[in-house]
Amino acid sequence: MTPPGDALLTDLYQLTMLQGYFDRGMEEEAVFELFVRKLPAGWNFLVAAGLEQALDFLAGLRFSDGDRKWLRDSGRFSPRFIESLAELRFTGAVEAIAEGTPFFPDEPLIRVIAPLPQAQLAESRLINILHFQTLIASKAARLVLAAPGKLLVDFGLRRAHGAEAGLLAARASYLAGFDGTATVLAAPRFGIPVFGTMAHSFVQAHDDEMAAFEAFARAQPAHVVLLIDTYDTEAGAEKVVELAPRLRAQGIKVKGVRIDSGDLADHARRVRDILDRGGLSSVTIFASGNLDEGDLLRFASEAAPIDGFGIGTRLTTSASAPYLDCAYKLQEYAGRPRRKRSEGKATWPGRKQVYRAFGTDGCMAGDRLTLADECCDGEPLLQPVMRGGRRLQPSPRLDDLRRRTGQQIALLPELLRQLGPAAPYRVEISLSLHALAAEVDRTTADAAAARR
Amino acid sequence: MTPPGDALLTDLYQLTMLQGYFDRGMEEEAVFELFVRKLPAGWNFLVAAGLEQALDFLAGLRFSDGDRKWLRDSGRFSPRFIESLAELRFTGAVEAIAEGTPFFPDEPLIRVIAPLPQAQLAESRLINILHFQTLIASKAARLVLAAPGKLLVDFGLRRAHGAEAGLLAARASYLAGFDGTATVLAAPRFGIPVFGTMAHSFVQAHDDEMAAFEAFARAQPAHVVLLIDTYDTEAGAEKVVELAPRLRAQGIKVKGVRIDSGDLADHARRVRDILDRGGLSSVTIFASGNLDEGDLLRFASEAAPIDGFGIGTRLTTSASAPYLDCAYKLQEYAGRPRRKRSEGKATWPGRKQVYRAFGTDGCMAGDRLTLADECCDGEPLLQPVMRGGRRLQPSPRLDDLRRRTGQQIALLPELLRQLGPAAPYRVEISLSLHALAAEVDRTTADAAAARR
Repeated sequence: MTPPGDALLTDLYQLTMLQGYFDRGMEEEAVFELFVRKLPAGWNFLVAAGLEQALDFLAGLRFSDGDRKWLRDSGRFSPRFIESLAELRFTGAVEAIAEGTPFFPDEPLIRVIAPLPQAQLAESRLINILHFQTLIASKAARLVLAAPGKLLVDFGLRRAHGAEAGLLAARASYLAGFDGTATVLAAPRFGIPVFGTMAHSFVQAHDDEMAAFEAFARAQPAHVVLLIDTYDTEAGAEKVVELAPRLRAQGIKVKGVRIDSGDLADHARRVRDILDRGGLSSVTIFASGNLDEGDLLRFASEAAPIDGFGIGTRLTTSASAPYLDCAYKLQEYAGRPRRKRSEGKATWPGRKQVYRAFGTDGCMAGDRLTLADECCDGEPLLQPVMRGGRRLQPSPRLDDLRRRTGQQIALLPELLRQLGPAAPYRVEISLSLHALAAEVDRTTADAAAARR
Repeated sequence: MTPPGDALLTDLYQLTMLQGYFDRGMEEEAVFELFVRKLPAGWNFLVAAGLEQALDFLAGLRFSDGDRKWLRDSGRFSPRFIESLAELRFTGAVEAIAEGTPFFPDEPLIRVIAPLPQAQLAESRLINILHFQTLIASKAARLVLAAPGKLLVDFGLRRAHGAEAGLLAARASYLAGFDGTATVLAAPRFGIPVFGTMAHSFVQAHDDEMAAFEAFARAQPAHVVLLIDTYDTEAGAEKVVELAPRLRAQGIKVKGVRIDSGDLADHARRVRDILDRGGLSSVTIFASGNLDEGDLLRFASEAAPIDGFGIGTRLTTSASAPYLDCAYKLQEYAGRPRRKRSEGKATWPGRKQVYRAFGTDGCMAGDRLTLADECCDGEPLLQPVMRGGRRLQPSPRLDDLRRRTGQQIALLPELLRQLGPAAPYRVEISLSLHALAAEVDRTTADAAAARR
């Protein structure tokens, strides 16, 4: 028997609700949409990400023998209900905004249309997947915008929140324009370029820094990037100048140096000077050490001679905004639109579409949130990606998604691409949607009572 | 052939350094220690967590055929080195501070003593495991201290950073005193009690709220907790009062209600009043909705009639402090102490011990960071847990660890257990450690040069 697994990676209330739906035979079509309620402070847009993994999850959803045994042993569920779970598969449809597309609050990132139990059960893990990658892709896009023309590498596995976070942060940041990651497994898993230099421990394990540099260069002759700040950054740079001709004689070229502490811009200027005077003007300078957008913007404004950055913790934990206020809400059941009216958390009912308008300059000029069957000018963002539990298209290549993401972000209005405060992007709510919300409130007895 | 897996869940530089160590035959004993550099703003202590998973990782560390094939295909490593990886196992020793113990900056949470390549390779994933659980256990301990006597449940799977984060946050928060989690898989995996009620979608899927309440009560007759804020919280409470006698006639008891929006304290007072007047004084009130320590402290100071809390996002992302500034540093190689001197990041060299003193009241009275072979009064916190790659003790039961954690946290000085600003707990550095640091600086040529 397989041990309990992924189907139980859900909130208990999904299963208790499913028992309730089972008892009442509530299996009609439900429509859920996932959206973000508001942007993190200072953020001007989000970047959709994680759809690939979300569709994998839906296509693979099933209860194993081990899962059902655990449910039986828990004593909380009826035997007939547990038996019914053996056959449960996701047979529904999904419409979604393509990965890499900028989007805004209230716009559905994904819509799930399926028999109520399936669509309900999927909630916890669907949010878990889409929330995290969207968070990291959005954060990464900000970092990319803050460092135009620089090499950006994800260094954040160690302080990412667990294994999956480390791996999927590599994917989401690459999607959003990073050049690669230090996380090796991201290469075989997603085809992402991996980058790596050396750690201070390598230098410390050797009796002197020069011996460490030489050993590392011989071990990785095609990828010589030397970490020069273990003891004294400028003295480290001088050693590189001394060592380079000796390595050149052996056919080994020093590609770069890395600085990981102190005032990075200041060190970079002095190191650049030492390298240039030593005939090493082609050797690049790579910097790391708890960097965030603000640091990258400052380096750019100071024209610090840094060619690339390793971004770790603040990328993979999205430290400045570690979560998005998102929700997955029932919008329609058995053909009737539904709406939650809890204070401060009311939602727009029904199936919706987002139409995006573009200006004469080609840039995004405003979105309109409409009912899905409304006609409207502009590009409809939600597109069918799954029917009957099957993908409609093969998985796109990550490199293609990444290229498209870059093009999409370039279409954001200039003020939103700057990272400072900006007026929110215009998202209009269509009149029909307003009318439907009012209609739902009138016809749902409890909601109507709540308004009195 | 197995696909590439966990051994490649590491930073590329670990592997490039291992190639360097291999070329130079550097396989002597290395000592690494993992410690936190400083506390997050406003935090007064940390709680050690994650050792179980860390030891599992070390005991299971190996390169599969698939891993080695990927390394060969990458073209970055020598065939002899890749061949050597087939035999690589963790054969070292580990000493650690027990899970659930409060600890402070500079104190080694774990020490790894192993041939250099093994100890180096383990770095990325060891930090990844220990950092996250320690972060969440520390955050959870703060929430527990803020809500004495209340039921606390982890509701945070959906916005945790991926699957592993969701699952391990359930473990770390339970260890630190939470009563359970909503994440089902945490029950079979770790034996953690699971809690669950219903979502707004369950109410919305029914034509009226009363029908939804009744359906849910019949489906989960032993666990009836009703979510009453979908439309109007107080009207929801009135319905519970109306429904309860009907359910009682069927032998079903309403255990509680949940409120998830609006001013929770205010609603709780009104709902308490409605329930009490309706003869339901034994029905508990459970609250949720983006709660953090500050909210819990406020509810306690207002004596809000709330019996328990579901804490989600702000627990599992540790939103107020989403990472710890921690490091895993080489302290000794081939019998010689080592020290990193990078600006702002210098470390204490050598193998260290933490001795904890207790006052006459039994409370913690100060720690002393010493060399491991120094004798000192107090309780030595680092204890051997692995030798020759094998655990020295069987895995402790999580419930036993949880009980011990509660006892340990109760020994923290009163001012630290309050969540406000407090003078830092006293951690003295022993004279011998000061002397060793000076000695290492004198005898490491490059470090000495850096000091001139």
